[in-house]
Amino acid sequence: MLRVPRSGQQARERLQRAALELYRERGFDRTTTAEIARRAGVSERTFFHHFPDKREVLFAGQDRLRDLLVPAVRDAPYGLGPLGVLLRAFRSIESVMEEGRSYAQPRHELVASTPTLRERETAKLASLADAMADALQERGVAGQRAVLAAHAAMTAFDLAVVAWYEQPAAGLGARLRDAFDDLHGLALEDPDPTT
Amino acid sequence: MLRVPRSGQQARERLQRAALELYRERGFDRTTTAEIARRAGVSERTFFHHFPDKREVLFAGQDRLRDLLVPAVRDAPYGLGPLGVLLRAFRSIESVMEEGRSYAQPRHELVASTPTLRERETAKLASLADAMADALQERGVAGQRAVLAAHAAMTAFDLAVVAWYEQPAAGLGARLRDAFDDLHGLALEDPDPTT
Repeated sequence: MLRVPRSGQQARERLQRAALELYRERGFDRTTTAEIARRAGVSERTFFHHFPDKREVLFAGQDRLRDLLVPAVRDAPYGLGPLGVLLRAFRSIESVMEEGRSYAQPRHELVASTPTLRERETAKLASLADAMADALQERGVAGQRAVLAAHAAMTAFDLAVVAWYEQPAAGLGARLRDAFDDLHGLALEDPDPTT
Repeated sequence: MLRVPRSGQQARERLQRAALELYRERGFDRTTTAEIARRAGVSERTFFHHFPDKREVLFAGQDRLRDLLVPAVRDAPYGLGPLGVLLRAFRSIESVMEEGRSYAQPRHELVASTPTLRERETAKLASLADAMADALQERGVAGQRAVLAAHAAMTAFDLAVVAWYEQPAAGLGARLRDAFDDLHGLALEDPDPTT
């Protein structure tokens, strides 16, 4: 069933879905960009217009998350501490996460079971945390505290999303609150870890 | 100056130093395993006896850290919270870090300035944090809290080590205490970020 995409955005989404389908059917290593383009009903040249290689086609969504999360940190109301700002930022993308779930959940399973993709995912999340740490610093949070807060919050976000994929009923918001509560509880349990 | 290494361990260390020298002189991408072997005074076959490829030669030290840190978490006294256990584990490798510093600091600078190596480093540290989280779980810490604590602590360790490389005078121990203090303070500052 070949439909001609009406727009660049449509072609891009068809390529993303075609790539995911093929990677799940045949494995990431055994799929070529030509096969992805054919499945999406576009030319291989169109593939390379949208994505630099067959790995990056799976990571376009994270660029979009960055474009939402960094301004959310930058524009959060003053008076919140760093973790409060970060939780608020993650909660602001709940509806985007819900809309994207039918793609993102099977994508997550593929990435988690493919070492080369998992490594890329880890690096992308670390880079996203660094961008959020930079945005915290612009708000006046000291460098080391900003990095610690952003990376800890990214781990909490990642755990919350995976728990939500596995059991969607409770909702992503409840999972986020639960993970940030645990992060908070760690400090209470060790009144002074440095003694 | 070609000396024949007297033992496998000696050859291994010569290869690690030769690789780092060449990567710094010429860049990672422009160095071959044959050149590394020649500089170390061994055969290319000996290189591949010790390391699977020219990237992994830079990451052998992290396997050693894992072999020290995971038992340190497992065998920590009971009564400490997760962050206390983790700080204690990192403090137990201070002397190993000091001994390895003349190699580890220029290695860090190379890795930080080479994207493909930086990505590998990030993945290795995440995997080391996962191993420490598993060891916390064996002590009875719940899964999500163990992962949060271990990854946050790994970020603190990484920040402390880089700060120590830049200004060694204060000592790694003081840097570790400072980073864990900041981590602890973050959670206290947002008494309940989920409300």
